[in-house]
Amino acid sequence: MEPTRILLEAHEIPTHWYNITADLPSPPAPPLLPDGAPATPEQLGAIFPPAIIEQEMSAERWIEIPREVREIFRLWRPSPLVRAVRLEAALGTPAKIFFKYEGVSPAGSHKPNSAVPQAYYNREAGIRRLTTETGAGQWGSSLALAGQMFGLEVRIYMVKVSYEQKPYRRLMMQTWGAEVFSSPSTLTETGRRALAAAPETPGSLGLAISEAVEEAAGRADTNYALGSVLNHVVVHQSIIGLEAKKQFDKIGLYPDVVIAPHGGGSSFGGIAFPFLGDKAAGDKRAENLRALAVEPSSCPSLTKGRYTYDFGDASGFTPLMKMYTLGHDFVPAGIHAGGLRYHGASQRVSQLYHEGLVEAVAVPQLATFDAGVQFARCEGIIPAPESCHAIRAAIDEALRCKETGESRVILFNLTGHGHFDMGSFERYFSGDLENFEYPAEEVEKSLARLPQLGRRER
Amino acid sequence: MEPTRILLEAHEIPTHWYNITADLPSPPAPPLLPDGAPATPEQLGAIFPPAIIEQEMSAERWIEIPREVREIFRLWRPSPLVRAVRLEAALGTPAKIFFKYEGVSPAGSHKPNSAVPQAYYNREAGIRRLTTETGAGQWGSSLALAGQMFGLEVRIYMVKVSYEQKPYRRLMMQTWGAEVFSSPSTLTETGRRALAAAPETPGSLGLAISEAVEEAAGRADTNYALGSVLNHVVVHQSIIGLEAKKQFDKIGLYPDVVIAPHGGGSSFGGIAFPFLGDKAAGDKRAENLRALAVEPSSCPSLTKGRYTYDFGDASGFTPLMKMYTLGHDFVPAGIHAGGLRYHGASQRVSQLYHEGLVEAVAVPQLATFDAGVQFARCEGIIPAPESCHAIRAAIDEALRCKETGESRVILFNLTGHGHFDMGSFERYFSGDLENFEYPAEEVEKSLARLPQLGRRER
Repeated sequence: MEPTRILLEAHEIPTHWYNITADLPSPPAPPLLPDGAPATPEQLGAIFPPAIIEQEMSAERWIEIPREVREIFRLWRPSPLVRAVRLEAALGTPAKIFFKYEGVSPAGSHKPNSAVPQAYYNREAGIRRLTTETGAGQWGSSLALAGQMFGLEVRIYMVKVSYEQKPYRRLMMQTWGAEVFSSPSTLTETGRRALAAAPETPGSLGLAISEAVEEAAGRADTNYALGSVLNHVVVHQSIIGLEAKKQFDKIGLYPDVVIAPHGGGSSFGGIAFPFLGDKAAGDKRAENLRALAVEPSSCPSLTKGRYTYDFGDASGFTPLMKMYTLGHDFVPAGIHAGGLRYHGASQRVSQLYHEGLVEAVAVPQLATFDAGVQFARCEGIIPAPESCHAIRAAIDEALRCKETGESRVILFNLTGHGHFDMGSFERYFSGDLENFEYPAEEVEKSLARLPQLGRRER
Repeated sequence: MEPTRILLEAHEIPTHWYNITADLPSPPAPPLLPDGAPATPEQLGAIFPPAIIEQEMSAERWIEIPREVREIFRLWRPSPLVRAVRLEAALGTPAKIFFKYEGVSPAGSHKPNSAVPQAYYNREAGIRRLTTETGAGQWGSSLALAGQMFGLEVRIYMVKVSYEQKPYRRLMMQTWGAEVFSSPSTLTETGRRALAAAPETPGSLGLAISEAVEEAAGRADTNYALGSVLNHVVVHQSIIGLEAKKQFDKIGLYPDVVIAPHGGGSSFGGIAFPFLGDKAAGDKRAENLRALAVEPSSCPSLTKGRYTYDFGDASGFTPLMKMYTLGHDFVPAGIHAGGLRYHGASQRVSQLYHEGLVEAVAVPQLATFDAGVQFARCEGIIPAPESCHAIRAAIDEALRCKETGESRVILFNLTGHGHFDMGSFERYFSGDLENFEYPAEEVEKSLARLPQLGRRER
């Protein structure tokens, strides 16, 4: 039997992360303050430790992964690279479909890949507490896990509607020792103001971010941690693609196309950038490599957004970043892939997309669940709704290979399992799930509210 | 860094199961019919395929694992053997603690190890449909997965109270294409009678078994599948211990004590029997090996039960088996480790316990959750309530080593993750969880109702 699960030993965990900033065809646009001045490292120091700020700004190609971080990674990494032979057979495709399975982490997704180093660097900087926000719960549970591993207290502001609807995710964070509060809370000025204005508010990710940042900025022993979008997060996630490259080396293959769901950009950048690094380095095998970001058609920041300066958060607290955006106050439809409901995109993914080096496609919700269920029935694993986006695109790619007869090697990022998302599958099976159209009018409105400073480019 | 996760490649999946029947010190007591005559293979043929009946009765030491079964196992097996270095450090013990992690299966527990071969043998026998019952949902979801892999329809009778309280487990089965009905249902004579007598009944595992067996017995294209207790299930689960032995070989260690939760006996027999096989074969390393079954103090079939003939199910449909039992109509307290709420024990485990070759201990509910949370905070993985029983005993063993200074090698079976049991952790954290005393009076009553045929031995 040919191997279908390609495993690595603990000593094969990469020792360095890959930073695509070193290989960008043109210098990245700097983050700006609302007054137009570049954001400085000092200004970020109120909420981030020095090592994280350095990584955010770094143009070094390789950044060493601390030994203590790799020791924690050994609890579940290296993650398996799996050939989906039963899915291939069910599709009748000549394509070879591989997935990198990040659901093996205790929190069930790729998010701990960044939560662990963030907790480590904060502890190294003498920080004792971390705050963050969480919507669907993937990031919050990952930071709870990471904080526990390094002896940090973790306080999580969980969007009220999720806090009430997803008690199991909340319990998971509490099992790892984190404090979880429904946001808006009475613990912060922002929260109290929001509650006074609308006591029955369901909360929002923007509000929860504001609460977490307010608390971190106001306490010397406390920092804030973000789970996507920023470059240091994308750097940390490069471990996915770096491991996958080693795994492909073991079987003498190389992907023709790398596919990942796209929300803030860290799972896409994480798996695709190391391969794009090969391409930048002139590696023959990567000459025709395609990297495909898959976003929900109801929140199509890359395929329908504008490439311009915008805030990273809904409330306008962060520096302005040049990125594809639907407008920072655009409110995406309530799709079940909560991790993909983000108005913007990582600066690095945005620049590469703008320069034509990566591709993007938008897919409707129902088609992603069709793909996820087909996958589960072939390969066993029940995927997270976010991951179903990548599966959809991988299946479509494999079906095109069936038409053309090409035996392409497809790699996708199976970012997590769906154990805490079975309610979404319930609505899918009961026929209650709907597609959401591209909200053109809403996007136009929110783009019209872009910060004035932003240069309008496309 | 020393390896802490000991992995095997797909080609190292064992090719044969181990059957401890070959190594029993005395011949096993045969299953009997209520009239005292031995149960014959023909009588089991109404609900089981020939290969399963043969394995149930077999005294062969090694039974070949079919190639197609091993191919499905490759979706998640071999499962990792992990050294719990962070738990060791937290306990300050000189002991080496290892766990075999069966939660990596798509269904999240060791149950697919038997569901997959059972589905295979039924398909080989020309069967098109399988029925079964499920309480907590672990077995039902495993059979749903296995049925999907071999193209069999699967119908699951899920105890009504679980059907209503555990919708996510139900959804999991539906994702893998199974039909799930609340039991008692209107689909069977048994179900209709139960509903007529008590329309608001919460159902019971005994009733659900009866419904599944009734349907299987009445249809030529349909068989029934059981997830524990019977010998063929214990044989299938031996893959756990067989893999663990290979993994210990890789690092030049051998366990001093093997620990597993004990409900029906398949997870305990699965991990412990292959090591006991070494002992029976005179392997020096196994000379002082201890095998420890951990049961809930509210359902202490081994430590407080009687070794005698009793029915395997609550309603008295099955043949009588010689085993430790609390009486087939004993109703255990509603502990959260649903998989351990069984009145009896596997015949093989019972015989070995009776002959002093395995040990047993009963632990109270709260102490198991204490252990499970401590484990999660060290090793990341959130364990199932059943698995928490083994963790409790492993920690206690490690703490004794701390007192004596012995560097013993402890192996326990981490039978599954707790992703679908977070409600139990909620009650633990909120202080609502209680210990249940040993229900001496109830056990006396149910033992007084043992079938007359049963010889009273102790």
